[in-house]
Amino acid sequence: MIHAQDIPLIDDIAAGSLDEDLGRGDITSRATVKSGQQARGNFMAKQELVLAGLEVADAVFMHLDPYLEVETTAVDGELLPEGKVFARVVGDAQMLLAAERVALNFLQRLSGIATLTRKYVEAVAGTNAKIVDTRKTTPGLRMLEKYAVHVGGGHNHRMGLDDGVLIKDNHIALAGSVTTAVARAKDAAGHLHKIEVEVATLDQVTEALKAKADILLLDNMSPEMIRQAVALVEAHEPNDRRTLLEASGGITLANVREYAEAGVDLISIGALTHSAPAVDISFKIKPI
Amino acid sequence: MIHAQDIPLIDDIAAGSLDEDLGRGDITSRATVKSGQQARGNFMAKQELVLAGLEVADAVFMHLDPYLEVETTAVDGELLPEGKVFARVVGDAQMLLAAERVALNFLQRLSGIATLTRKYVEAVAGTNAKIVDTRKTTPGLRMLEKYAVHVGGGHNHRMGLDDGVLIKDNHIALAGSVTTAVARAKDAAGHLHKIEVEVATLDQVTEALKAKADILLLDNMSPEMIRQAVALVEAHEPNDRRTLLEASGGITLANVREYAEAGVDLISIGALTHSAPAVDISFKIKPI
Amino acid sequence: MIHAQDIPLIDDIAAGSLDEDLGRGDITSRATVKSGQQARGNFMAKQELVLAGLEVADAVFMHLDPYLEVETTAVDGELLPEGKVFARVVGDAQMLLAAERVALNFLQRLSGIATLTRKYVEAVAGTNAKIVDTRKTTPGLRMLEKYAVHVGGGHNHRMGLDDGVLIKDNHIALAGSVTTAVARAKDAAGHLHKIEVEVATLDQVTEALKAKADILLLDNMSPEMIRQAVALVEAHEPNDRRTLLEASGGITLANVREYAEAGVDLISIGALTHSAPAVDISFKIKPI
Amino acid sequence: MIHAQDIPLIDDIAAGSLDEDLGRGDITSRATVKSGQQARGNFMAKQELVLAGLEVADAVFMHLDPYLEVETTAVDGELLPEGKVFARVVGDAQMLLAAERVALNFLQRLSGIATLTRKYVEAVAGTNAKIVDTRKTTPGLRMLEKYAVHVGGGHNHRMGLDDGVLIKDNHIALAGSVTTAVARAKDAAGHLHKIEVEVATLDQVTEALKAKADILLLDNMSPEMIRQAVALVEAHEPNDRRTLLEASGGITLANVREYAEAGVDLISIGALTHSAPAVDISFKIKPI
Amino acid sequence: MIHAQDIPLIDDIAAGSLDEDLGRGDITSRATVKSGQQARGNFMAKQELVLAGLEVADAVFMHLDPYLEVETTAVDGELLPEGKVFARVVGDAQMLLAAERVALNFLQRLSGIATLTRKYVEAVAGTNAKIVDTRKTTPGLRMLEKYAVHVGGGHNHRMGLDDGVLIKDNHIALAGSVTTAVARAKDAAGHLHKIEVEVATLDQVTEALKAKADILLLDNMSPEMIRQAVALVEAHEPNDRRTLLEASGGITLANVREYAEAGVDLISIGALTHSAPAVDISFKIKPI
Amino acid sequence: MIHAQDIPLIDDIAAGSLDEDLGRGDITSRATVKSGQQARGNFMAKQELVLAGLEVADAVFMHLDPYLEVETTAVDGELLPEGKVFARVVGDAQMLLAAERVALNFLQRLSGIATLTRKYVEAVAGTNAKIVDTRKTTPGLRMLEKYAVHVGGGHNHRMGLDDGVLIKDNHIALAGSVTTAVARAKDAAGHLHKIEVEVATLDQVTEALKAKADILLLDNMSPEMIRQAVALVEAHEPNDRRTLLEASGGITLANVREYAEAGVDLISIGALTHSAPAVDISFKIKPI
Repeated sequence: MIHAQDIPLIDDIAAGSLDEDLGRGDITSRATVKSGQQARGNFMAKQELVLAGLEVADAVFMHLDPYLEVETTAVDGELLPEGKVFARVVGDAQMLLAAERVALNFLQRLSGIATLTRKYVEAVAGTNAKIVDTRKTTPGLRMLEKYAVHVGGGHNHRMGLDDGVLIKDNHIALAGSVTTAVARAKDAAGHLHKIEVEVATLDQVTEALKAKADILLLDNMSPEMIRQAVALVEAHEPNDRRTLLEASGGITLANVREYAEAGVDLISIGALTHSAPAVDISFKIKPI
Repeated sequence: MIHAQDIPLIDDIAAGSLDEDLGRGDITSRATVKSGQQARGNFMAKQELVLAGLEVADAVFMHLDPYLEVETTAVDGELLPEGKVFARVVGDAQMLLAAERVALNFLQRLSGIATLTRKYVEAVAGTNAKIVDTRKTTPGLRMLEKYAVHVGGGHNHRMGLDDGVLIKDNHIALAGSVTTAVARAKDAAGHLHKIEVEVATLDQVTEALKAKADILLLDNMSPEMIRQAVALVEAHEPNDRRTLLEASGGITLANVREYAEAGVDLISIGALTHSAPAVDISFKIKPI
Repeated sequence: MIHAQDIPLIDDIAAGSLDEDLGRGDITSRATVKSGQQARGNFMAKQELVLAGLEVADAVFMHLDPYLEVETTAVDGELLPEGKVFARVVGDAQMLLAAERVALNFLQRLSGIATLTRKYVEAVAGTNAKIVDTRKTTPGLRMLEKYAVHVGGGHNHRMGLDDGVLIKDNHIALAGSVTTAVARAKDAAGHLHKIEVEVATLDQVTEALKAKADILLLDNMSPEMIRQAVALVEAHEPNDRRTLLEASGGITLANVREYAEAGVDLISIGALTHSAPAVDISFKIKPI
Repeated sequence: MIHAQDIPLIDDIAAGSLDEDLGRGDITSRATVKSGQQARGNFMAKQELVLAGLEVADAVFMHLDPYLEVETTAVDGELLPEGKVFARVVGDAQMLLAAERVALNFLQRLSGIATLTRKYVEAVAGTNAKIVDTRKTTPGLRMLEKYAVHVGGGHNHRMGLDDGVLIKDNHIALAGSVTTAVARAKDAAGHLHKIEVEVATLDQVTEALKAKADILLLDNMSPEMIRQAVALVEAHEPNDRRTLLEASGGITLANVREYAEAGVDLISIGALTHSAPAVDISFKIKPI
Repeated sequence: MIHAQDIPLIDDIAAGSLDEDLGRGDITSRATVKSGQQARGNFMAKQELVLAGLEVADAVFMHLDPYLEVETTAVDGELLPEGKVFARVVGDAQMLLAAERVALNFLQRLSGIATLTRKYVEAVAGTNAKIVDTRKTTPGLRMLEKYAVHVGGGHNHRMGLDDGVLIKDNHIALAGSVTTAVARAKDAAGHLHKIEVEVATLDQVTEALKAKADILLLDNMSPEMIRQAVALVEAHEPNDRRTLLEASGGITLANVREYAEAGVDLISIGALTHSAPAVDISFKIKPI
Repeated sequence: MIHAQDIPLIDDIAAGSLDEDLGRGDITSRATVKSGQQARGNFMAKQELVLAGLEVADAVFMHLDPYLEVETTAVDGELLPEGKVFARVVGDAQMLLAAERVALNFLQRLSGIATLTRKYVEAVAGTNAKIVDTRKTTPGLRMLEKYAVHVGGGHNHRMGLDDGVLIKDNHIALAGSVTTAVARAKDAAGHLHKIEVEVATLDQVTEALKAKADILLLDNMSPEMIRQAVALVEAHEPNDRRTLLEASGGITLANVREYAEAGVDLISIGALTHSAPAVDISFKIKPI
């Protein structure tokens, strides 16, 4: 969910995006549409999609003109069929036109992410694996894109570098070894943080278990290798497996279920946010 | 090109993106990497790609730590083979790690746009048509994404609603007709602006020519219909065709050449910016 | 008009100006006026003037205290006789006093511009020439000052350096010639922009026509020379003169009609914004 | 002087003014001037003037491009003859062009204020009266305009509402009387502040003296009436006149000396900042 | 009082403090409290205290969620007994929890200052001395801390370096002598400012009186020395002592009355703001 | 340590604090000290103290005037004897004076916190308990105050509400029970976060252990009750105690060792930041 605490940030993003598009103002609408003309605009799904971004679109219209009325007939996270009108905006026609493109840009991108996420989630249905996102998000839109993953049925990994300890290959290269890196993290990190470490080989899996890492990120492993890693962990914690396992790298819609069935707890997919194609949505305005 | 006048904006975007990722700071690197440790990080193309975003990536590193040294071995717009190391950064290892993801997010997205643009440009090579972008950009990144289109060989349409008069279907619906909308625009717009109008039928083409629009946006027409529209314009301006023609809607890499050969001056492609997949780039750090 | 899209900018300007004047607060009013005292303040024209700035003045009061009530009895653009009370503000007396000077500073300056503009517009009444402003505006107040020109009956030239291509003497000196400068502009500027070029001699007029410039800025020419330039253009486009002509430089209320009658389309006057004297307006407050 | 502490504010004003003019960038110079072209621009006085604003103009160029070199051959406050070249800027031609208008707008306005101030100061030369400014300044430019008054030889009245207690007619109307207003001010104002009160009649002069105001603002009085007010004060403080007297309202270059000779300490002139005409300055650029 | 003009600043401080605490959001409350759960929170004094900060606490809650309802049962400046519930907040439980700590941090600190101030004020009751604060305030909170001194019964010294001329030991060291420093100040400071000078010896007292300083700051003198300084001033102005005297340095609750009885007008106490311990206040929330 | 990533925030805090104090500028120093006068200022400890804040003080001077030279002869965290000169600043005397108070306000407050922290740390020396801070910090200064705790030898608890899951009494009241609150947190919090829960009774200790909380905050318990809680935990995890225990509430310098010896891992002390008295530091300036 978008929380009440997030509203100021969403308003800032909406305002900044309007500024970016408007510059000195919408010279076409000022010139061609009568001042005061009232109109209604309808948002319609032009393809099947999972909706995301209604609150941002609403913030765009409200920021530009608080007298506009936005009425929604669907909710974020809903799977919409092609042709579904999911929101209507009524008010000053020049304002509808000035906000149109920015609102669409948010809706098309965020719904694109939610739609792609849902496909991955459906692909692993019935397994124990959760689909999670990454920090490979669009600069400036991380919170919104992670929200779109959430309404698409996915889970969120770290919101940023301050939101958890995740030791990656570069850290290990600099620290010298998995053992050293994990030990330093356990010593220096705050007492409320768990320690996750990226491992690329079965030897590193064993090393990370000995170092008492809380979570292992299995990077670029084949499903078969994942299964062996799971076996190592289960042997290490025979009664009560507390160590979580995350798979990452080279995972697509075609093979994601195989990874899930290999026994990992989490599967992280960068493409959810860095390569989801925009979905097609139209906004048609008529005078009233 | 990125102009000197753009530098403050780029710095702001870099700073904002770092803030978004860092939050209260990179707790992993602080915990696992020795303070003062020096390192070198290499950016490498993991696939063939057209590079874009070097100056933004540089701004990211410089903003975080002006003592880092960034050395580039390629330039934006260059076609890089898989495996090419195109930039190196040397300095404080914690700083390299803190900036890594943000720099990559910019490089992967912008190079993705440039790479896709180049494919469209190559597809119409030898015709008179220019590939142009749209306002369907990522909120907050319009200038950078249009720059990526530019280095990919494309041309830029309006930077925003203030950067030219483009009368679209919604304006016509509100004004009542193409004729009325164009007449109002010619009357009200500043004397330095040309008038472009979107038309969807051949009758509208004729109407727009009579109204003395400067540019016609042929929306969602088939190549055959485009050819008929071109014929209408050439009949209207037999000696010196001054009216420019732009095609838009439903154009893909598979059919773009057919549109170009139909005789338009400009072909606008929303997917350049709203659906270009990120390209694969790595950043590997080693201690020095 | 001030458009709804301009409201955030106007609020920012109002807020900034109040900050500038208030600093740590209005120590005189706090000390001498009882907290909670209600009062009415009347704005009165102390000379004949064309009113401009009501919405800015309103924004000043509203920013400081949204509970103030502002009632207007005239509209921007109206010619007010001496002695006319054109607005009343009712509410907390300390707030009226704190906003008084800032509101007056806007009203006196903007009405000064509108009043001077109207004199120029009346001086060319019945000719084809439009009075236009320049970029010689007060730093920070361009949009408001151009609005004042508008309500005074003038037209607006470029809002800024991004709002049209105008090649001036310095550009020509750097490009080498009018021909080169215009050719480069036609090649590099976006397809929605016309090209205006400054010319100082009749030879340059001819050169600019050959280069197919869209608009000629006739700089510092006498009315007689202007007439010769007009003749050159009409000879070049005998049936349908499409090239617009703008006169600029050395034009005063005394000679502006002569320039208009020489046949130009536009006359630009820097003094409208850089040297309009403030008009006299009073604000008298009484307790209620 | 502009103090080191003022530099951040000046930089902000310069930056804001450049943003206002540039918007999305100088499209003319980008199109017509070669990237990297070096040039020299000369600022020349086109009329006799008192120079003011060199540091602001310098900040404008430096903000846009720190590699520009600005060389000055005069100082603020200097009386320049027509034809004097007072500053040169060398560097990237596109940058010179982008900053030209903003720099000129500051220089022409501030030098206009300094030039007018000097005329008033010269008119009262040899008397005890100081010429002081008012708060009737351009919103956003108060500090700079008061600086221009300073270099023109004038003195500064309050920088804002927090910079001294000045009880005006509206305060008195609300407090009920001069006596009440002054008493309240002496009680409530901080112990470091003097109390100035506006008086419009000789009875109010007497009332203000009894109330022990520190300074009297003699509003809209004739020189004769001023002389009588001075006599009243001298009678009240026969040995050591401590009460300062300021004249204000209806004072012009034609009559200012008469006011000075009437015996006041300060003469405040709103026109110094609200109605000073811009002076004429040129900036000519040549390639190097 | 907090004036209407101060509200924007208070809102900014409240917003900044919430940002500082919330970062990416209150992850505990989001996880453990049901979305939409309504609740009531009570603020209670856990010790006797003088209340200060209600409007800031209110601004904190309102900034986070304008739908919260804050009801107060006491006013700033009131002496509250232990156990007194002085405010209730009703609304969304997650919002109450997110704002709790920030609101408490303001209330506990500001009430701590007001409580300490009241003790000093009571200690000098019946004398002519006023208790005043200093500029030894918490960076960022000066206005609020001086407000807390005010509601505790104290008076405010300078709000900042621009709010009065106070020549201290370092100025004298640089100017060379009290005489030189005061003379320069009388010459250069605006005509609305009085001149206060710090003196550390009786010779300096005499020197300052001769220099016609308006106020003397008696620094680090014993009560006995203060009495001698008072005698010097009274001898210098036998009929009408206009020179104010302020004592400062080494003054505690134990000896403040002795200083007051020595005859000074003002006693400044840095500890009011730099060392007041926080008072104990609780905020207990229950579901409704 | 203050990390390189923290520098922008420190600069912002320094800049904001200077703005707060300077307002329109240091009118005393401008009036009394010659422009260009060079001087040296020495910071001296006037009592034994643990130094903290050198980098902030440096940022204050550098922000105001980058030409000042700051030389330090001690480091943050060092225990300084009374009389120790720990830093010298050389440069423009007006700048030294303008920055003096702000720099001192930071140094005195932060060193006060470090000095108090060290006393607590020394009091528990030799036990397993760490002294940790709380979120009871000064609004706006949390990062700096937590840094001061760090250099005083303490450890940092959560930096804010996003930096860890800590379920407190109000959360439990709203969730209904410790069990429910912990279960919800384990379900909803990110997989990288541990769960800490506040417990006030031994029954709640047992409940929290069953709920598999990672950390128990023992609130307002006596040392004896703490010992019983420790025994319960050790009985629950006989071989490998993984659950951390934190004591909080009613802990003073007098009794802190008793709590440490009771066997807790962490002792949190709000007074470290909300009630540490400022230490005494002087800054004496001499001309050079």
